Amino acid sequence: MRVVCLAGGVGGAKLADGLQQILGPGELTVVVNTGDDLERHGLTICPDFDTVAYTLAGIADPLQGWGIAGETWNVMDQLSRLGSETWFRLGDRDLATHLYRTERLRGGERLTTVALTLIDALGVPSRVLPATDGPLRTWVRTPGGWIDFQDYFVRQHQEPEVLEVEFRGAAAAPVTPEVQSAIRAAEAIVVAPSNPVVSIGPILAVPGLAAEISAARARGVPAIGVSGIVGGKALRGPADRMMASLGEEPTALGVARRYRDAQLLDTFVLDQSDEGLVPAIRALGLETIVTGTVMVDAGSRASLAREMLAAAAWSGASRALKGHEIARQGRPESTVSDDLPE
Amino acid sequence: MRVVCLAGGVGGAKLADGLQQILGPGELTVVVNTGDDLERHGLTICPDFDTVAYTLAGIADPLQGWGIAGETWNVMDQLSRLGSETWFRLGDRDLATHLYRTERLRGGERLTTVALTLIDALGVPSRVLPATDGPLRTWVRTPGGWIDFQDYFVRQHQEPEVLEVEFRGAAAAPVTPEVQSAIRAAEAIVVAPSNPVVSIGPILAVPGLAAEISAARARGVPAIGVSGIVGGKALRGPADRMMASLGEEPTALGVARRYRDAQLLDTFVLDQSDEGLVPAIRALGLETIVTGTVMVDAGSRASLAREMLAAAAWSGASRALKGHEIARQGRPESTVSDDLPE
Repeated sequence: MRVVCLAGGVGGAKLADGLQQILGPGELTVVVNTGDDLERHGLTICPDFDTVAYTLAGIADPLQGWGIAGETWNVMDQLSRLGSETWFRLGDRDLATHLYRTERLRGGERLTTVALTLIDALGVPSRVLPATDGPLRTWVRTPGGWIDFQDYFVRQHQEPEVLEVEFRGAAAAPVTPEVQSAIRAAEAIVVAPSNPVVSIGPILAVPGLAAEISAARARGVPAIGVSGIVGGKALRGPADRMMASLGEEPTALGVARRYRDAQLLDTFVLDQSDEGLVPAIRALGLETIVTGTVMVDAGSRASLAREMLAAAAWSGASRALKGHEIARQGRPESTVSDDLPE
Repeated sequence: MRVVCLAGGVGGAKLADGLQQILGPGELTVVVNTGDDLERHGLTICPDFDTVAYTLAGIADPLQGWGIAGETWNVMDQLSRLGSETWFRLGDRDLATHLYRTERLRGGERLTTVALTLIDALGVPSRVLPATDGPLRTWVRTPGGWIDFQDYFVRQHQEPEVLEVEFRGAAAAPVTPEVQSAIRAAEAIVVAPSNPVVSIGPILAVPGLAAEISAARARGVPAIGVSGIVGGKALRGPADRMMASLGEEPTALGVARRYRDAQLLDTFVLDQSDEGLVPAIRALGLETIVTGTVMVDAGSRASLAREMLAAAAWSGASRALKGHEIARQGRPESTVSDDLPE
């Protein structure tokens, strides 16, 4: 089953890992957020790409979820001695990735080409694609003014209130041929439990990308997403506070509403602890799956992935049977989700 | 005593260290070869500058003479795993220097400005200046064709015969205001026991630099150099073989002849084991000092430096006394060296 998974960093990497566990080699393509990308110490750093790539390569730090296991920090420590700002910490092995990438980008290669070389070198059996090769960058407006994403996320520890979000450079950051081909070949689209505003948001802001997903859905390709907000709390990061300060409901319902508004999904997965939100989410026109969504180990990653793909297959098959060949957006009731095994 | 020392890598760093030990803070300016500089992994690397800076900062690896003591190699090992060519090995802490430098160069700073910031950050009490901010690079012609210096020096382990040397880019690499000021303020000029062809050679190829030295010598500033070839063998590196294949005598006499031809020195220091060469070197019009020149520890670095500065002071004073205000080039006999304490 050829699957395209839209993903941000750690949460996205976990689900991608689950998907990779149960899919055959080459069946999974992860399309990752590039809005977090940044330049530090003259290097181009792609935090979400790297987190997904390291996770799928089996070398991610198991405790913090990002970076490389057994990492050392000798370059950073010395940079700090030299007086460099080192609030964005880069491990020694991780730096090899950034050096490798930056040298090739300066040589004129596309970010996607470099990404494919990197995952190949890391022995990753799936494809990990940046959502765009262009200069799309996430900026947030805080009470103190507009700041770039990593200033907000790392330097200011996600403390400022986010009043507005912009994906700067998006106009010059079109969908790549590789992402286009992957979506056109996909038999299911999966949206990871990443931050809907600043992880999935930038992917959808890539000109032409959302249209590819719409076209796939119109062809009957199932699209299923899972909430990264459980019990009103983001599993990781500031998604809940961010949605609240943007005037959205900081719950799985708020996430579902976002994805419904973006016409992204037909099926939405939420945690057992959020079962009470099912009627409201169905009222948005989304089918629902209620299951355990918190991925605490390799097994729970695989089992969430399996459940999502089963639901996607069911939903796709069901639609084909019923002759529903167009997107189900706006349909007030779901019949499919009732029949799914829980 | 304000001293300018022309230096290459390890040998230059040792004498610079000796000079720094006996001079007051700020009295020593080391002008380093930039012909060895290179771009690797997208970074600008200045091997001779770094060796001198680390040595004067007291952090150089005491065994190999270059790099940083207690270095680790985690970035390189990972780059190697990613499939990068890693024949030019860069330690983790050393990489911090290159990242720091490269980021600033890309930001538009001059190599000299970055160098001064670096030595300040490293706590070096002397100035270490690149001979030029321009793109001067050493190339050598071998039986296999022209190759850049580090290809010859590191990748091919100095094995190919050197048939010709070029300092490419020299025309666009003028002397800097900082080097100019240092030479104009110098009370002595010292040439370190570095490779006369590819360490001192590139410094003298910097347009305007040799003229500054000539002008200083014409003002009576003493200039003293020491042979890095002892007993017909280079203390380190390929200077002896290189001079032989270039048709020059691979001895202290050959070195002295080069410096005489460049009108660089009035006094030449050679090792006790080369005492037999004294008459021939004097015949070139150079004064001579015979002493132990092999620097095996901090003490021998300081004592060679002390001896050279004493000789320079003596030579300068003697010239002033005798009213010799012009360069002594071409003078067939030396009287000064006879009187110097050995």
